Order: sequence, then structure tokens, then C-alpha cells
Amino acid sequence: MKSKIIRKRTKLADARELLLNSFTPPDSCETIELNDSCGRVLAKDVIAERNVPHYDRAAMDGYAVRSSDTVSASDSSPIILRATDEISEGSCVRVHTGSAMPPESDAVVKIEDTSHKGDLIEVHTQVHPGKHVGYTGEDIKIGDKVLDAGHFLRPCDIAMLASIGINIIEVYRKPVVAIIPTGNELVKRPSQITPPPGKITETNSLMAGMYVSKWGGKPQYCDIVPDNPELIGQVIESQLNADMILLCGGTSVGERDHVPDAVDSIGKILVHGIGISPGKPTALGVINNIPVICMPGYPAAGLVCLFEFVRPSLMKLAHINKIRTPPLQARLDRKITSRIGYVTYTRVRLENGNAIPLMTSGAGIMSSVSRADGFVVIEENVEGYEEGEIVEVELIE
Amino acid sequence: MKSKIIRKRTKLADARELLLNSFTPPDSCETIELNDSCGRVLAKDVIAERNVPHYDRAAMDGYAVRSSDTVSASDSSPIILRATDEISEGSCVRVHTGSAMPPESDAVVKIEDTSHKGDLIEVHTQVHPGKHVGYTGEDIKIGDKVLDAGHFLRPCDIAMLASIGINIIEVYRKPVVAIIPTGNELVKRPSQITPPPGKITETNSLMAGMYVSKWGGKPQYCDIVPDNPELIGQVIESQLNADMILLCGGTSVGERDHVPDAVDSIGKILVHGIGISPGKPTALGVINNIPVICMPGYPAAGLVCLFEFVRPSLMKLAHINKIRTPPLQARLDRKITSRIGYVTYTRVRLENGNAIPLMTSGAGIMSSVSRADGFVVIEENVEGYEEGEIVEVELIE
Repeated sequence: MKSKIIRKRTKLADARELLLNSFTPPDSCETIELNDSCGRVLAKDVIAERNVPHYDRAAMDGYAVRSSDTVSASDSSPIILRATDEISEGSCVRVHTGSAMPPESDAVVKIEDTSHKGDLIEVHTQVHPGKHVGYTGEDIKIGDKVLDAGHFLRPCDIAMLASIGINIIEVYRKPVVAIIPTGNELVKRPSQITPPPGKITETNSLMAGMYVSKWGGKPQYCDIVPDNPELIGQVIESQLNADMILLCGGTSVGERDHVPDAVDSIGKILVHGIGISPGKPTALGVINNIPVICMPGYPAAGLVCLFEFVRPSLMKLAHINKIRTPPLQARLDRKITSRIGYVTYTRVRLENGNAIPLMTSGAGIMSSVSRADGFVVIEENVEGYEEGEIVEVELIE
Repeated sequence: MKSKIIRKRTKLADARELLLNSFTPPDSCETIELNDSCGRVLAKDVIAERNVPHYDRAAMDGYAVRSSDTVSASDSSPIILRATDEISEGSCVRVHTGSAMPPESDAVVKIEDTSHKGDLIEVHTQVHPGKHVGYTGEDIKIGDKVLDAGHFLRPCDIAMLASIGINIIEVYRKPVVAIIPTGNELVKRPSQITPPPGKITETNSLMAGMYVSKWGGKPQYCDIVPDNPELIGQVIESQLNADMILLCGGTSVGERDHVPDAVDSIGKILVHGIGISPGKPTALGVINNIPVICMPGYPAAGLVCLFEFVRPSLMKLAHINKIRTPPLQARLDRKITSRIGYVTYTRVRLENGNAIPLMTSGAGIMSSVSRADGFVVIEENVEGYEEGEIVEVELIE
């Protein structure tokens, strides 16, 4: 009897599309302090309840005047006004950028267009009504929609909201991501002693959880589950309150690999076996509108899975439509090859615009990930790239 | 008597270089839990105290064998071994990827290269000593330097460190950034009521503090200081325990602008007046090796200052040498112009690869920042760009 191997190999783009189309993001939201809203997503349009500016203001340092008092003023024939505290015919009031316009004034003469002798101000230029005045509501009017639902909140947005008196805000709830490490070989950390031969410290959930946090989700860590289909199924069922489920390990087709079957018995496996290297044994599924991503136990393969499947799923769940920065371009320092039919992730170090491929003897070689600044992604229909070619590098965050 | 205006206009690149060369980053560090180290920077090299793997392991699912037992095995002439629990001549042991190699075994036959009838295993290929074996220390050896001091810790690095039993770690202390808002017109938030005419809610320190946190620093917020040179000086002196000082407002040359003079009386102003628009009144200084950045009070100008001066200074203080992602490229949807001699930051919205310039009637128009996805940066020697040109867009984080 021949042993089974993963024969199916879904294309990366198809696999990702299947996954992303298999669920709709939850609409649930929460009210939080504006001060805590950096990186969150607005769940409702924000309508201004204040004008900006909320008063007529000077837009320049200078003197508030009645524009009619400046008619035909010029350098050669300045008009003299008296600086006072209130505007009347022939007087002016010193203002600073942002000062309230004094009653009766309707324009500002810039300080550079004046000279003074005591409280007598020579005005060297004529100003029209409204010159250098910021009128109430000129920037934002009461009732204006200042930000749309779905807006990703950056510090500059938050400052704007604060400036119109907003102190609490309604945002989408952070997606909760259950992270379930599986494998008889795993030992829980922190472990002070080196695990016995055949056992290793479980670290994939830590890596996954940190990326989940970075990408706007909330990790919900589970204990290590042994390679037992019933136990794996029970833990999955206990996590159906989450918005996404990540399983680490047990995704291949060995005797101890029960994860995809366990998912399929509760929900549905969409894809098992994907044309990516490392990461071929990845399985993707869905249970009651919850995306389920079964990551291989090899850390380097898990990392590819995180970037290619977990990140876009999390963005969709969190309603984040952030603009992705483009990949970096670099000159390939040495020829790299890949297998046709697999999107291949070659780890590279960047140095002076060169992408230097790192020697790796397998997907498990984690130290090469730490030395890597990014991946050169070789598309599935490409055999590799030559030394000297300009390639795109996806930075490893 | 003519009023003073800022006559000097240092070039952006020169101003930034002056600032960055005016201080050395502090070396102080702290010991933290590995779990909390995402985004931090290693202060010391990390030396492995464990081998990876820490035992000889199977690198494939299959059977551990004595390679000498497989000599000349092939598809047409397989060799039969008995599956047992211990290796002796003519026997083999079922192993999984990561299993400890049984004593006396020296190679693994992949499961795909075998077939079985009960506990009799047909081996279809010859393996050489060491085939599919991961030897102790093959990835990382005790004493190896696994990460260098100065390394920026990403989740994948942290997982690697966890896998070699590291649970606490020495990192550089986060730079503390004192943020001092100045201005008689400012009202502290949260303010439930609209400030009176001439007064506005202070929000620049919130914006600055959130960017400081995002970029790896620790904001230290100060109360609003009125436009009084002695008081400004006192507050600056009270903040000399910080690693950087940001002052917001009061940087121009009006009657109420005392900030650059206050800095200069304690330390040294390096530059006042920079060829950027918005942001011309920016001043940069240094006090006892502490960089001091005087940001204009206009939020949009402050934002440019944050990106151009605060971010690189903070990176230097925090010892972060992260690779910057390249700017995005987009097609300019409408002609934009700029003044020669100023690096100009035009806010644009991105839509389907087009950069759509936003109408702004002044640096204070904050709502345009929120609608903007990024800046098109027009260099100082360029008059603008034509509709249809491909321009670079710096995303606003």
C-alpha cells in the first residue's frame, strides 16, 4: 500500500480568493475613547457638531481693519490708522493668526504690509472685504460629514476629531483570532529547560499572535492540543466565538496530521495543498462564516501563511482598507531558482540596494528568517531569476 | 519700523542633517519579557545557549534506517525491512518529521519511497548516511550569535528566540519625547463646550504623541504653556530628562512667538526657517545632546514636521534601522504647482492608481489631511507637476 501525499495544489491566488469569499466580516462595534482609537476603523460616519473655525478669525498676523478704510492705500501713499482695542472709523486692532476678528472689522492687513510709529499704523496696501479672514465654518460646517464609516484612524485624523470636540467614538470591534497550536511534540513555553529529544518548544502561536495584534486583531491563545482528532475537534468547537481560527501544525497527510479532517468534520475545508513553497500543506476552511487557516508547523512556512492568508483575512474582518505600500526593488545578488507550479518565497537580506539570497536548508531553518529582511516572491510560472535582475522584495514586518 | 519676518530658509535636507548630527542616541537599555519585545531593538548580541535542533531529528516522515541496509534498493528491486521500535540490522523505525532519530539509525527513507505489508516495509530507494537527518546544531549552534545588537525585533525573530529558550531580553530603552504645547489661544481637551472665540482646543500634542508612540518612542505630555518666554524656558528646563523635546506653536516671528528664543537661551537653535511648505517657521535646536524640534502650530505644518524631522530623529534615538518602504507611484489627476525654493507637500487622495490633489485654502485646513491618503512631495527646484505625470506619493501613516 502506497502512503498518501498531498496531490492537490491549488494556485495561491485562487486559494486566497476562495478563502476571502467564504465569509463576511462581522458588523459589531464598540464605543471607545478617542485617545485609544489609533489604528481602529470607524463604524459610523462622523458628523461635525461644531464649525471649524467656530468663530471668524484672522488668518494672518497683522491688523484687523474696516476694508473701506484702506481704499487706495499703497507704499507711496500709505493710509494711517490708529491701533486701538475696538474698531471704529480710522482705527485698527492688532491681531494674531487665529485671533477672533473684532466686531466691525472685515479684513486683515498683514503685518508685513504695515509699519508703525507708536500707535499710528501705516497701511501700505488696500485690502478687500474678507482678506485674510477665516470665516466660521469655512473648513468644516456643523452637519458636515468629516469622516466616513470604514475610515482607518491615523493620528492626524484623531487630532482633527479632537479639534471638533469629539472625545468618544464608535469603531468596529477588533476581530478575535483563536490560535490553536497542535502537536504531540510541543512543549509549552516559557520552558526553563531544553525539551527532551523529539520535543520542541511551541513558538508558532507566539509568532502568529504578535502578527495578529500588529494587523489589528486580538489573539486568543489556546493550550497545545495533542495530535488527536477528537481533542482537536473539541478545541475548535470551543473557539467558535472567535472571528477567525488559526491552527498551527498537523496539516500534512501523515499519520499524525488530523487538523484538516477535524475542520472538515465541523465545517468545510475549501483547499488543502497550495502551490506555495514553503507552505504547501496549508489548508483553508470555513466554519459558520468563520475563516479557518491551518498553518503548517514549520515556522518559515507558517510565516508565509501569515502574510498570504491571515493578513488579508484579518484586514477583511477588521474592515481595514489600508493602502498597501509597494514592494521594494533590489538587484538580485545571486541567481535563484524555483519549482514551476509553486510561488516560492526566497529569503533575502538587503544591503545597498542588493538582495542577497540566504542559504536555507529547509523550511524549518528559522535563523534564516531572522537574518532576512524580506522575501523575493517567485511567481509559479517562473523558474527563477538571474544574478543582476531587478526583483521585488516583500519586506518581512 | 518694519516688522520682522523669517528671512532665512534652510534647505530641508541640510536642516535635517544638521539636526541628526547634533546628538548621539542614548545607550541606556532595559530587560524586558520576550513577549513584550515586538518593535523593540536589541541592545546586546544574542548568543545561543541551545543547539537547534537540540537533538538529531528526522527531517521527513518515513522510516529511520541504517543506511547500509538500503544499499542498491530500487523500485524494481526493493529491500524489505521490519518495522520495530529499535534499530538493528534489517529493521527500521517509523519516524515523523521532527522525531528523534533512534540510536543506531543514520538516515531516513521518505514515506513516499516505501510501501508496506503489515510490519514489513519495502524500501524502494537507497539512502546515504545522513539522508533526511537534521543534525544537532545544524541550524543554530550553542555559542552562535543569533541576532546582532541593534536588531529590530519582529514577531518572526521573537519566535526564533523563544525556540532557543530565551524568555527575557535586553533592549534599548524607548526614547522619551517631551511634548510641550504652547499658545495663549489653547484650551486643554477634552473640553465639553466649544471654546470661546479666539480660543481653540489643543490637539497638536495628541497628534504628535500618537506618532511618537507609533514610531517607537514614549510621549511625555506637558500642560499647555502660555506665550511667555520665561514660562516656556522653565518648562523646557523641567523636561531635560527627556531624550527629545517637541514644542508645538510659537515658532514664527510674531510678538507672541517666543519658542525658538527660549530654546536658544538654554541650548542652541540650529535652524529657524526651513524651505518646506507648509512648515516654513519650523525651528530645530539642541540642548545638552537633546534634539529640540519646534513645530508650527498649524496642524498640517506640524504633520510635515513630524514626518520630516521627528520621525528620523526618533529612529536615531531608538537605534531603529528599519528599511523604509518606497513611496507609492500614482498618476497625477490634476496639475499641481509649487513655489521654487520650498519642498511642497500637496495632499492627495488615491483612487485607482490616480493621485487626486485636494483643494486646501491654507495650512490650517485640517479636514483635508483626513481626506488625504498621502503627500505628493514637490522638490524645491521643481515648479510643479502636470496632469498625467507619474508622481511619488508618501503615504500618511
